[in-house]
Amino acid sequence: MSLLFRLRGVSSSTSCLEPRIRYHPALPFRRARDRQFSSANRGEPVNDTTTKTARVVFSGIQPTGIPHLGNFLGALLNWVKLQREAPLDDQLIFSIVGWHALTLPQDPHALSVARREMLAVLLAIGLDPNRSIIFHQDENPHHTELAWILNCITPMGKLRRMTTWKSRLATSRNARDESEVDESMLNAGLFTYPVLQAADILIYRTTHVPVGEDQQQHIELCRDLADNFNRTFKSQHPLFPLPQHVQTPSPRVLSLRDPSAKMSKSSPDIQSRILLTDNAALIKAKIRGAVTDPIVGVTYDPEARPGATNLLTILAACTGKEVSEVATRYHDKGHGKLKADVTEAVEEVMRRPRAEFEKLKGETEYLSSVARAGISKARELSEVTMKEVRTCVGLV
Amino acid sequence: MSLLFRLRGVSSSTSCLEPRIRYHPALPFRRARDRQFSSANRGEPVNDTTTKTARVVFSGIQPTGIPHLGNFLGALLNWVKLQREAPLDDQLIFSIVGWHALTLPQDPHALSVARREMLAVLLAIGLDPNRSIIFHQDENPHHTELAWILNCITPMGKLRRMTTWKSRLATSRNARDESEVDESMLNAGLFTYPVLQAADILIYRTTHVPVGEDQQQHIELCRDLADNFNRTFKSQHPLFPLPQHVQTPSPRVLSLRDPSAKMSKSSPDIQSRILLTDNAALIKAKIRGAVTDPIVGVTYDPEARPGATNLLTILAACTGKEVSEVATRYHDKGHGKLKADVTEAVEEVMRRPRAEFEKLKGETEYLSSVARAGISKARELSEVTMKEVRTCVGLV
Repeated sequence: MSLLFRLRGVSSSTSCLEPRIRYHPALPFRRARDRQFSSANRGEPVNDTTTKTARVVFSGIQPTGIPHLGNFLGALLNWVKLQREAPLDDQLIFSIVGWHALTLPQDPHALSVARREMLAVLLAIGLDPNRSIIFHQDENPHHTELAWILNCITPMGKLRRMTTWKSRLATSRNARDESEVDESMLNAGLFTYPVLQAADILIYRTTHVPVGEDQQQHIELCRDLADNFNRTFKSQHPLFPLPQHVQTPSPRVLSLRDPSAKMSKSSPDIQSRILLTDNAALIKAKIRGAVTDPIVGVTYDPEARPGATNLLTILAACTGKEVSEVATRYHDKGHGKLKADVTEAVEEVMRRPRAEFEKLKGETEYLSSVARAGISKARELSEVTMKEVRTCVGLV
Repeated sequence: MSLLFRLRGVSSSTSCLEPRIRYHPALPFRRARDRQFSSANRGEPVNDTTTKTARVVFSGIQPTGIPHLGNFLGALLNWVKLQREAPLDDQLIFSIVGWHALTLPQDPHALSVARREMLAVLLAIGLDPNRSIIFHQDENPHHTELAWILNCITPMGKLRRMTTWKSRLATSRNARDESEVDESMLNAGLFTYPVLQAADILIYRTTHVPVGEDQQQHIELCRDLADNFNRTFKSQHPLFPLPQHVQTPSPRVLSLRDPSAKMSKSSPDIQSRILLTDNAALIKAKIRGAVTDPIVGVTYDPEARPGATNLLTILAACTGKEVSEVATRYHDKGHGKLKADVTEAVEEVMRRPRAEFEKLKGETEYLSSVARAGISKARELSEVTMKEVRTCVGLV
């Protein structure tokens, strides 16, 4: 399971400018809300999340288009795995974070379509609205309300040090070579989005946030803000648990056309990525065209042979094997054989979600009902938090 | 009528660091909402607000304590005057802007008390909840929702150039003499509050915002954001009117103890200000202790004789006369006579609001019912705007 606050439009050729911001899950989790209420009575410390009790897991994805294979293998499949394996008293919350998408220019019609399609994608891959809370962030203004309050305890310096902001700044500077002007052109949403992200997480008193390595800093900020809030606005018990930054290994899926970069939705070359909606013929054609190298035999070597390594990575992820194990099977085989097997494995994992998506995307009534049920549950939880927040800060 | 997004804690001895941010009303106004809906059908231009039709006037005040004489004469009395004089189809909206108060550290209990007392103050001075919408901003999350969306079209550079931010920065720099560190300690709420302020205004499709001279820049930002939104997210008609910056002459009431500074809630010397709750004896004692000068006879001379000038200003404002007219009456009189007359005039304007406030502040049930009715009307309006905003940006 991954939380994707994807930042589009940043060059995908530099790793620090990686457009995706992923959250990955890990054990153990526990339900902080329950713990807090009970610990308030027992006087226990609240933020120890090392014992295995119920967890609150929050994760999100930006509605900026059909997910590609990298999103699918690196994030979405993990969500489904988490849902399958989590104990029943874990609370699982998956959000389509539309407000984050606005930090970059969007075509409103395309965004609106992507927003609905993303809900269909989440259901198509197997998320169950009866088990998990699945909702549109942008339908719950409590998120922005808490974000404002957190803004007021967020030092400018902390936001300035966020690597995602610095990456944006660097990109902007490179493009114009005039640093002051460029910073001033970037919008305040981009600058403060880690605070909204912290609000997304904290408003459900999340205990565990699956996060990619590149997003560790954002979770640290979120923890800092939770801790700062708890200390500044003392209530009977610390209001927010400090959510854990947890990370699961996630396959690094690279561009099929330029394996020095990650697979990216923003690359102009559509042959560089496989989308969840690509049919078998398209998958075959794109993998056949994948850039490899002229060396005979296939070996796993991310530095010297990124193209072949990428195909091995994809194959391993699709078949649930270790990449080293997969690699040994191909050391004496050609790229053609590998590509054929990758094609088959990708089609195998994508077929069912793709078919489900094609079926679901037209079921607007059903999608609306799922969204309504999801936002209702989300608001019910967030209202409880916000009531306490308002009391803590004195706005009652 | 004035909108007070008061910034407390900034030194009141430097004019550019003036803690109050005031909005003042002026004519003409018109109701942009009605115009927009009708103009959409008739294809009229929308942002021409020069003809005298219905207006939407929005103004706010921070709940950071009992207003002092400067707030009362410079802002609150104008609200009442506006309510008395406005045509019936003008929409008048007065908000207690609690979220803005959080940009500076607050004692939660004191804030909570101040928040309720401010509502009592607004009713005590004569605002009529049956004529005007009176509500707590912090009970309407649509404000923060719109603020987030506006954040995403607000260049960092524009916020950086806000004089209120620069003032804060300067204060901070002076205090620590280490500019980089100091900026980084200021919170993101302070930096972005002009965007929330713009949302407060635009969410009701306000056409007119009474504003002090020092806040002209914020209204310019608000207009820029409205225009930017209208251009970026095209709908059938421009969604937001460009609110007019309008200014009414407002008496500059100075500290009674240090007439080089404005009267301020944050001054440590409580003798420097008269509060709305001060009784006749307190008023008398404070005015008797007002700093003047040893020159015989009273003349109006803001530069050379700020203390005497301040008393003349207060007397003129309390009695509804021109200060020049008042001044001529005292050119051959002593400060003692002037102080006695000022005391009488202040007590005259304050007596009734004070008594009303003392009566109302304990009527918690009534205050709650007024707040409930106010927020209900405010939300009804803002929901209409937000529905259109969400459609425009593609979050539907």
